[in-house]
This record gives sequence, structure tokens and C-alpha cells, in this order.
Amino acid sequence: MHINLIGGGLAGSLMAVYLGRQGHQTDVFERRPDMRAQRVDRGRSINLALSARGLKSLEETGLKEAILQLAIPMYGRVIHSPEGKLSFQPYSSDGKECIYSVSRADLNMQLMDAAEQYEGVRFHFRQACEDLVFPGAEVKMRNLETQEVFTAPGEISLATDGAFSAARYDLQKTPRFNFSQDYLEYGYKELTIPAGSGGAFQMEKHALHIWPRETFMLIALPNPDGSFTCTLFLAYEGAKSFAGLSDEAAVSAFFRTEFPDAEALIPNLTAEFFENPTGSLVTMRCFPWVFGDKLALMGDAAHAIVPFFGQGMNAAFEDCSAMNDCLKQYPGDLRSAFDAYQRQRKPHADAIAQMALENFIEMRDKVGDADFLFRKQVERILGRNFPQFRSRYELVSFTTLPYAEALRRGEINDRILDTLTRSLKNPEEVDLELAKALIEKELG
Amino acid sequence: MHINLIGGGLAGSLMAVYLGRQGHQTDVFERRPDMRAQRVDRGRSINLALSARGLKSLEETGLKEAILQLAIPMYGRVIHSPEGKLSFQPYSSDGKECIYSVSRADLNMQLMDAAEQYEGVRFHFRQACEDLVFPGAEVKMRNLETQEVFTAPGEISLATDGAFSAARYDLQKTPRFNFSQDYLEYGYKELTIPAGSGGAFQMEKHALHIWPRETFMLIALPNPDGSFTCTLFLAYEGAKSFAGLSDEAAVSAFFRTEFPDAEALIPNLTAEFFENPTGSLVTMRCFPWVFGDKLALMGDAAHAIVPFFGQGMNAAFEDCSAMNDCLKQYPGDLRSAFDAYQRQRKPHADAIAQMALENFIEMRDKVGDADFLFRKQVERILGRNFPQFRSRYELVSFTTLPYAEALRRGEINDRILDTLTRSLKNPEEVDLELAKALIEKELG
Repeated sequence: MHINLIGGGLAGSLMAVYLGRQGHQTDVFERRPDMRAQRVDRGRSINLALSARGLKSLEETGLKEAILQLAIPMYGRVIHSPEGKLSFQPYSSDGKECIYSVSRADLNMQLMDAAEQYEGVRFHFRQACEDLVFPGAEVKMRNLETQEVFTAPGEISLATDGAFSAARYDLQKTPRFNFSQDYLEYGYKELTIPAGSGGAFQMEKHALHIWPRETFMLIALPNPDGSFTCTLFLAYEGAKSFAGLSDEAAVSAFFRTEFPDAEALIPNLTAEFFENPTGSLVTMRCFPWVFGDKLALMGDAAHAIVPFFGQGMNAAFEDCSAMNDCLKQYPGDLRSAFDAYQRQRKPHADAIAQMALENFIEMRDKVGDADFLFRKQVERILGRNFPQFRSRYELVSFTTLPYAEALRRGEINDRILDTLTRSLKNPEEVDLELAKALIEKELG
Repeated sequence: MHINLIGGGLAGSLMAVYLGRQGHQTDVFERRPDMRAQRVDRGRSINLALSARGLKSLEETGLKEAILQLAIPMYGRVIHSPEGKLSFQPYSSDGKECIYSVSRADLNMQLMDAAEQYEGVRFHFRQACEDLVFPGAEVKMRNLETQEVFTAPGEISLATDGAFSAARYDLQKTPRFNFSQDYLEYGYKELTIPAGSGGAFQMEKHALHIWPRETFMLIALPNPDGSFTCTLFLAYEGAKSFAGLSDEAAVSAFFRTEFPDAEALIPNLTAEFFENPTGSLVTMRCFPWVFGDKLALMGDAAHAIVPFFGQGMNAAFEDCSAMNDCLKQYPGDLRSAFDAYQRQRKPHADAIAQMALENFIEMRDKVGDADFLFRKQVERILGRNFPQFRSRYELVSFTTLPYAEALRRGEINDRILDTLTRSLKNPEEVDLELAKALIEKELG
């Protein structure tokens, strides 16, 4: 089969690997230059959290071991209080599960290299999607070097061109295409904590760091070179906001008051703050995702989500795995394959979009809250005593249970915890008999 | 002031009247030809229901009397049962309030004529919006006759270019623009009941006719020439659906079974069915509606809604009135005027969008339901006894109480009716003492 992939980011490059393995002729059109040659543009955000769903796809494509070589395991959250006090919240009840900090650019380059190992796969850079030749599978592309417009032939096209997908904007005017773009009133700014002397990590390496401040937060993920990439999430307008941080003095004072321990570790704070762009946070939803037997949307193009569950890339990789399964399940019947793909994936994309929005409140506010921590302690006791009880975070990050099912089980967990914590004074005194009965009844 | 109006439909033409009255230089750019010269294209739908909010704007602009000359008052719904039995449901408790059936084309032409009476107002036809020259107020227009592209100067631009607004599609790529388009799984088809001999109306003239069939419905509105325009609302797919009505025999059989009395009055049923397009039903939501002191979205461009409350045009006309008030309230301060306009109107646009969706269920299903009719009877008794008690339908259609307030009062009404109908056997036996107490407590 001859396939066009519109977009050679993370989802497009991984999908090219899947297709290459099946022997399909695959042309990947990417608007940006080849980042392997011009490493300046490092893409949208610097590092990402890779977890079970992404790892499953990498395993299926034989890439897991190589990619984990570049990844830093993070076993939990280190919470930084305003006074600089640290506390550790493990991600799993047993403390052994982890998510991985990976460089977006390194991962993308590895995936491109891997895809190009397959004979049928070719990347074409500086090629932008102009128009879908709907309802055909051909795509009108523009060569951004020569401005030449040409039609890319192909039996099917897969749009993996990200949250601001040109293909999806084109589809938006087709009949009965449901679509929404919802921005948070928050933006983000990336900042750097450089490595210490000799490449030393200046904070705990194996954790995701959070400075929760109720209405805003700073987070930091480790990089292999000893640095951390910090991201400030802050309202655009209002009392504490980007609008209020309009000069160097204001930025310095804000960080010194709110994040004193981080401020001490970010030497180029004000320079970076004013040089780096303020990113926006959007949720994109649409339906349908597929058009006849010709076109399918995948990854952020189909369902961009906010980053607070660390699942954007993982969800996109899960799409690639699902599409690969569907294509194999219905050989020669693309219409059924595409339809199975969208019916299978759409409810789960909606579920993770919702959970990602909810997790922003958890990260910026609840992780510093006594009641929340009390419940988390009870949750961990339950996890240690009852293997079938797993927190929503664990189900999303450490299993491949479908997202909608993780969402549903999270609601059951909440009800169980409500019952068990009612008038409980000490987490250790939780009624394990009652817990056993509730868990068996509700979670089978 | 020099103002560009993008779109000369109902909202654009009425806004041109408001602006002309204030002495503003107003250029109205319309994609279609002048419908006064080429009367073939009669626009999106044939007739519309005009009610209190639309009438208020027409009164403000001195056009009410002239337009009511062409309108047919409708005092309630005539419900057609599958057996052809008729029942009448008045719109107001006293039976005296009405909404008006008007021809979209006639109304639009009258508004254009009225606007052109003002020296500063000029209409330009066959001119399509290509691009907003953002963040300026200029608009790049294409003359569809000559294909010439030119820049329309102006101090502000008002986009009144409808549900599929070209201006709004352009805005969609600006930072943090929230937008959604949601289609119902239903389409609509227009059909004609012609006048009887001598221009006689073949059904009750002063009513909106409904054939409620739970999952689908037919409605009909009277036209001045004695005809009725019928609209079938039906699912695209499924057991009873447009997909199932694929040949003439199927269409005839469907109408004969479901709407026998209507079928007998539609002579060209199958020809019209296959010649007329199947329309889609979309809700468009966006925010912001205004951009600095340069651009504002109005009417369907800002908030297209489904037609089931008969409020699309009325809401658009209310926008024109509100914009006119805001421009007068902040002379020389467009930024404040625009901001006041969007803050004032957005919550009400969201409220009527919701109520319009809810009314589809009421019209196609509940109006034929015994429990609903029982409640309606109690509601009318309350309305006759307590002037401060008015149904949601009355508040929306016969008052200019803001939509969000009508929505809120409708919820209060529902609670009062819940209490009063509990174990009530006969509407006439409703406890008026209790009703009085509840209404005074809840509705002041």
C-alpha cells in the first residue's frame, strides 16, 4: 500500500515505523527542516514523560530498549513548599513504578532514523500540506523551499500534523464535522536549571519536581546532561499572571517570593523569561477522525490535550498501535479498519482529555493540600494490601487499561475512599475489612 | 465613523440601519448577488418566526409597522397526531400572545431598502471576505465578478457573515480563540403545501403546525400567499432516517404512514424531497467576540444556534440593538464599547443555544406526551392566576428578559411545577394557595 503521512513529528515518525515494518510504501511530509541536520529548532517543548502506553508501542516496534537508554526514570513527585521544604510522593503504592523523562527532539530523531531503516519509508522535509484533495487520498503539498505546489499520490493519507493540524482545518468545512478548540486561561514558559559542576544534578534526579502554588505552579523534569527543564504554568491575566510580570524586577521578585529554591538555581531567569515564548494550552476535540477509506487523523491532530497528565505523546503512540492493529485486522478493507480505529480510540481520547484537565488542579493545588495527602496515604495503604486496587494515576501511567476505563475506575476509587476516610483520624487505622469488602464488590 | 459590515444578511442589513441612523459611513459587503434584482436565491430557509426581541429592534429602527404588514401572527401550536387528530396549544396563558411567520427574503430586502435610505450606507454585492488584516480593521475582499482583490478601509469591521463566517474562520488561528462547531445527527428538508383554490390556507393559518413523532418531526409555518413551508427534521442515519429514504416509494410510504394529513397536501412531495438540499443543524460557539477596538462578531457569526426555539434571527437582532447601545454609551471609546457588548451578550447567546437544543426534544417528543400536556395545563392555570408566573417559552418569545435570566426562571418554574403536580390528578385541582406561596418565595 502507498501511504502519505502528513507530519513527521513523534506520532508521524512512529507510525512510519509501524508502516515500514508492514512493508508499506510510506511518504512522510514534514513542514519543518530535518532536525537531525539543523538541530536548532527543538520543537514545541523540551522534554516529555514517557509511560506504559508509549512504551508498549515502542516495544511493538522494537525500539524500547534503545529509547530507554536516553530516558531518566522518575519514581514520584518531589513537592517544593514555599519555604523550600521538600516532600516525596511516590507514583505507585510500592514505590517501584516510574515514568521516564525523555527529550522530545532526541526521541523524534531516533524514530526518524528507525523509520528510514525500512526500504519503503521516505521523509520529505519543508513540505507543507496545502489542501486535502477530498474525498481522495491525494494531498496538495507545497515545497517551502521552492514554493512549488504538487499533488502527492497515495492510497491513504494519515494526518499526524499536530494540534494545529492543517489537514483538520481543511476538514472543518466538510459537512457535519464536529470540532472544538478550548484554551485554558493559562500559559506556560520554559526555563532552565543548568547542570552543576561536572554535570551533577542540582536536585533529585529521579523525580518530577513540583512547586504547587494553588493558582499557578512550576514543574521541572531532568535531562540527561544534568540540567532540568522547568515550566511555569501561570494565568495570562489577573493578580498573579504573565500580564503582571512585565519587567525584570517583577519576574525576579515573583520567583524569589514564590519559588526561592528554584530561583537560586536558574541563573538566566529574566533573560530566558523574556526570550522564550509564552506557550498556550489547548484541548482540541473533533469527530469523525476518518473519512471513508482514504483519510484518518491521529495523535494531536485528532485530540490535542493539555500536558498535565503527561499523556499527549503516550496517547498518540497508542493511536499508532491501534491503527496498526486495525490495518492488520481488516486486510484489504480500509473502510472497516478506519472505522474500527475511530470507534475504538475516540472514547479514550475524550477520557484522557478530561483527566488531563483535572490533573492541572491536582498538580497546582491539591498536591500541597493536607486532605489530599491524607487520602493519598490511605490510597497507598489500599494499594499495598489489595493488588486489584490501583490509583487512577497508576492505571493511566503504568497500565494500558483503556483511558475511559481508568476514568471510570478512578470514580469508583473516589467513592471507596470517601467511605473509608469518613471520620478517619489516622490513615494507618483505615478499616481493612471494610476496604476488602468494598473493593471486592466494586472492583471485582 | 467608517464601518465595514462583512455580510448583508438579516443581521448585517439591520445593523446597517442602526449605523445609518447614527450617521456612520457604512459599507456592507455581501457575497451573494443583490436578491432584490435576482430573486431566485431565497437564502437559507424560507420563513422564520419573529418575536419580541426581534420586534424590539425593528421598533427602535422605525421598521416594525412596515414589517408586520408582511407577517402572519401565530398564536400557538397545532399538534397533528398520527391519526390526523388536531389539538391546539396556545403560546401564552391568555392565548393572546403570538409570534410572527415572516419570509426571510422579504425581510432581508426590506432591511436593505431601509438601510439604503441613509446617505452613508452602501451595499456592495458579490464581494467575499478573503482575510482580515489583523489586528487592523481593514478587510481583504475579493470581487467575485472580476476576481480582483482589494483592501476595504475602515475604522472598525463588524462580521455579520453568518454561521459559516469567513471572518471567524480567519480568527480561529489567532491566539487563544475558543471555538466549537457541533452538528446534530439530524438534518432538515423543506417541502411545500401550496395554497388552496383562491389562495386559501389549507390548514389553520394562525398557528405553527407540528407533527411530533418522538424521534423526528414535521413542522409547517404559513406564508402570506396561502402556502405553508414544511420542514422535516429527521436523523441522517438509523431506522427512520434520511439514509432510509433513498427512493420515491420509500418517501411516499414514510409520509403516508407518519404524516398522512400532510402527505395529502404536498402534491410535489417526492420531487421536492429529492430536489431540495438536506440542511444540517449546527451550534457554533466562540469567544472572544471582539478584538481590540477594531473587530466584532455579531449574530450567527458569533453564535449560530439550532432553529427549534425560533430565536436565531431574534438573538441576532438583539445583538444589533446591544451593539448600538454600547456604541452610544461609549462615544469615542470603541474598546470599551466592544468589551461591554461581548460581556453583555455572550452569556445570553450561550443560554439561548442551550434552550434551542432542549426545545428540539420538546417539539419532536414532549408536545405529544400526556405528562407534558398535564404540566402545560397546570402552567397555564398558574399563568392566568399569577401575573409574575410566565413559562420559559413566554419569557423567551414575548419578553426581552435576557435569555440567561429566562433560562434560570425556567428552572425555577420546573421546581414549582414538580411540587404542585406531585400526586395531582386533575390540573384544575392544583393547590393555588401553595402555588401563591411558592411563586412569591421563588419569583419575588
